[in-house]
Amino acid sequence: MKIHNFSAGPCILPQVVFDKMAEACINFNNSGTSILEISHRRKDAVEVIDTARALVKELMNVPESHDVIFMQGGASLQFPIIASNLLKEGGKAAYMQTGKWAENAIKEAKRFGEIDVIASSKDKNYTYIPKDYTIPTDADYFHCTSNNTIFGTQMKQFPNSPVPMVCDMSSDILSRKVDVSKFGVIYAGAQKNMGPAGSTMAIVQRDLLGKTGRNIPDYLNYATHIKNESSFNTWPVIAIYGVMLNLQWLKEQGGVDAIAKINTEKANTMYTEIDRNGLFTGTANVEDRSQMNATFVLNNEELKAEFEALLKQAGVDSLTGHRDVGGYRASMYNALPLESVQVLVEVMKQLEQKFG
Amino acid sequence: MKIHNFSAGPCILPQVVFDKMAEACINFNNSGTSILEISHRRKDAVEVIDTARALVKELMNVPESHDVIFMQGGASLQFPIIASNLLKEGGKAAYMQTGKWAENAIKEAKRFGEIDVIASSKDKNYTYIPKDYTIPTDADYFHCTSNNTIFGTQMKQFPNSPVPMVCDMSSDILSRKVDVSKFGVIYAGAQKNMGPAGSTMAIVQRDLLGKTGRNIPDYLNYATHIKNESSFNTWPVIAIYGVMLNLQWLKEQGGVDAIAKINTEKANTMYTEIDRNGLFTGTANVEDRSQMNATFVLNNEELKAEFEALLKQAGVDSLTGHRDVGGYRASMYNALPLESVQVLVEVMKQLEQKFG
Ligand SMILES: Cc1ncc(COP(=O)(O)O)c(C=O)c1O
Ligand SMILES: Cc1ncc(COP(=O)(O)O)c(C=O)c1O
Ligand SMILES: [Mg+2]
Ligand SMILES: [Mg+2]
Ligand SMILES: [Mg+2]
Ligand SMILES: [Mg+2]
Repeated sequence: MKIHNFSAGPCILPQVVFDKMAEACINFNNSGTSILEISHRRKDAVEVIDTARALVKELMNVPESHDVIFMQGGASLQFPIIASNLLKEGGKAAYMQTGKWAENAIKEAKRFGEIDVIASSKDKNYTYIPKDYTIPTDADYFHCTSNNTIFGTQMKQFPNSPVPMVCDMSSDILSRKVDVSKFGVIYAGAQKNMGPAGSTMAIVQRDLLGKTGRNIPDYLNYATHIKNESSFNTWPVIAIYGVMLNLQWLKEQGGVDAIAKINTEKANTMYTEIDRNGLFTGTANVEDRSQMNATFVLNNEELKAEFEALLKQAGVDSLTGHRDVGGYRASMYNALPLESVQVLVEVMKQLEQKFG
Repeated sequence: MKIHNFSAGPCILPQVVFDKMAEACINFNNSGTSILEISHRRKDAVEVIDTARALVKELMNVPESHDVIFMQGGASLQFPIIASNLLKEGGKAAYMQTGKWAENAIKEAKRFGEIDVIASSKDKNYTYIPKDYTIPTDADYFHCTSNNTIFGTQMKQFPNSPVPMVCDMSSDILSRKVDVSKFGVIYAGAQKNMGPAGSTMAIVQRDLLGKTGRNIPDYLNYATHIKNESSFNTWPVIAIYGVMLNLQWLKEQGGVDAIAKINTEKANTMYTEIDRNGLFTGTANVEDRSQMNATFVLNNEELKAEFEALLKQAGVDSLTGHRDVGGYRASMYNALPLESVQVLVEVMKQLEQKFG
C-alpha cells in the first residue's frame, strides 16, 4: 500500500533522494567505495558539499555578502550560537515569541545577555502571529521564527528591521521565495525541506561577525565554518549528500517559485476541507495559517477511533499532532505530493458521509 | 578491482553496514518507509538509538555509574563541552599534549580556565607518548588522547589518575579492552570504529556533572542528553542506524576482545614489514606505536612515484599521510581485513625487489 507520509520532521523526501543515497551506500559515483567509508576531504566528497552550498546560493538567490555553511547539532544548537555570535557583551536582543521553538531560542539567548521579548502570541496558545510590534533600534539583532511547526502558524511577511534580522526557518526553508538580503542570519535544521536529519544550514552575513567581544569556541563560531568552507572538522558525509540530492531535485522541479505554487495548492486543498467539513476545525488564526503544517482538531472526540481507522486504511501516516498540543497536524513539505493531500481530504469526506 | 581502504577516517566499515544502510534508505525494516523520512520519535527509530546505546554498554562493559549518549558536532565540539561541563569557574585542568587533536582540545579548554599542560611530546614532533608526569590532585580533571591519529602513537596504558580522567578515544574506541570505570568521560567522533560520519558518542560519569557553576547551553550540557536519552532534539537517524549496525557486527565478531586480537595481528604484520624492509622507516617511537594508524616514510623520496603506482595497481587506497606531516599512514581500523594489510605488505616487498 502506498504510504502518505505527513510526518512533521524528519519527513518525506523525494524518492530519487532515497534511491541515490541507497546506491551511494554501496558504490558512490561508481568509485568502487561506499560514501560511508570515504574521507570528507576526498575530492569527490568535497564536490558534494561544494555543490550543496552552490545550490543553496542559487535556489535562494543568496547575495555576495552572505555565506552558506553546514554544521551539525540541529536548530537547537543554533539557538545559543546565534546569541554568542551576535549578542554583544552587555548588549540586548529582541525576540518574537511565536511558539515552542521561539521559546527555546529565547531561553538559550538569555544565557548571554538581555533579551527583550517584543511580541508574543502566548496569550492565545500561539495560534497567531503578532503584527503590532516595534523592533528597538538599540538591539543587537531581532530574532523570529518564520514557521511554527507545532502550532501551524507562519509569518506571511517579514518586517523591515532596523537591526539585523535573524530567522529560524527550520520548517519552511526553500518552500517559498524569501529575500535573503533582508536577513542577517537564516538557519534551519535540515530535516524538513533541506534533506535528511543530521545537518544544519546557516546563511550568514559575514560583516556581522566578530563584534561581540566574546571568546567563542571554534565550532560555535560562524567565522570558523565560513573560513573552512564547512570543513573545519569531519562533516556528516551521507547527510550532506542527501541535502545535495534534494536540492538538485528541487532545482529540477523549477526551483523555489515552482514549488511554492504547488505548496500553495496543497495548503489550499487542505484548509478548504478543514473549513468546509463540519467535523473538523482548524486551530490557527486563518490569516496566519502555515502552508507547511496544517493543525486541526476533530470536533467530536468520539469519532477519533473511526477517523484513525480510515486514515490507516488509506495509508495516511504520521498525522498525530505534536505531543504538546494534541489534535492533528498535516505537514505538507516540498516532497509531499498533492495526491497525498487529496487522499487525506478524501478520508475526511468519508468520515463526514458516515457521521456528519 | 577490490579496493583496500586505509582511510584515516571516515573509514572502512563492514560490508553488512553498507548493505543494510542501503536497504534502509529504500525500505526500513520492511515498514514501507525510508529511514530517511521517519520521525526520530517513531517507535522503530527510538529502538535504533536504544539498541546502539545498549550495545556500547555491553561491548565496553560500561558501569552503572556512567551514561552513554549520542550527540552531533564531532570530537571537535566535545573539546569545549568537556571544559564547560567539568572545569569549575576559577578551576584548573591538566592536559597531556600528544598531537594535533590534543592541541585543539587544549586550545578550546583554555577559553574556560587555567590549563596545565603536564606532559607534552611536542619536543619530538609528537613521535612518542610521555610517561613521566604527575597529575596534580587539585585539577578538576585530567585529559588525554588515547590514540594520536595523525602521528601514529597510542597510549598502551592509562595512569591511575587522582582526579577524573577524560579521554578522547576517537580513533581507537572499541579496538581494544578499556576499563571504563577508570574514566570520568570517554568521547569519540563516530567516524572510525563506531560508524559513519555524523554522530559523536560520549560515556559520562553522571555524578561529575553540575559542579562547575557555569551557565551551559542545553545542547552543550551532558545532563541534557542523559536526561533525554539522546533525544533532546532531532538526532541523525541514518548515522545512528549505521552505528547500531556496526556495533551489531562487532558483537558478532566476538566483541572487543576478539577484534583486539585481529587488530594486534594486523599491526604486527604492518610494523614487521616497515622494520624489515630497508626502503621504509616507521616514524613513531616503537613502544608507542599505534595499532590503528601506522605512520612511516619512504627513505628514498625518488621512489615515490613508483611506490604509489604499485599501490594503485594493487587497489591500496588512502595511504597518504596527514597533510600536516606527510609520509604514509596505514589506518587499520576494526573493519579493515588482515588481507588488506597483507596486500600492502606485498607491495612494499615488490618495491624492495625492484629497488632495494
Ligand atoms: C521551527 C523549528 N525550530 C527548531 C527546531 C529544532 O530543531 P532540531 O531538532 O534540529 O534542533 C524545530 C524542530 O522541529 C523546528 O521545527
Ligand atoms: C583523536 C581525534 N580527536 C579528534 C578528532 C576530530 O574529530 P571530528 O572531526 O569529529 O571533530 C579526530 C579526527 O580525526 C581524531 O582523530
Ligand atoms: Mg512551534
Ligand atoms: Mg470545519
Ligand atoms: Mg594526532
Ligand atoms: Mg625499515
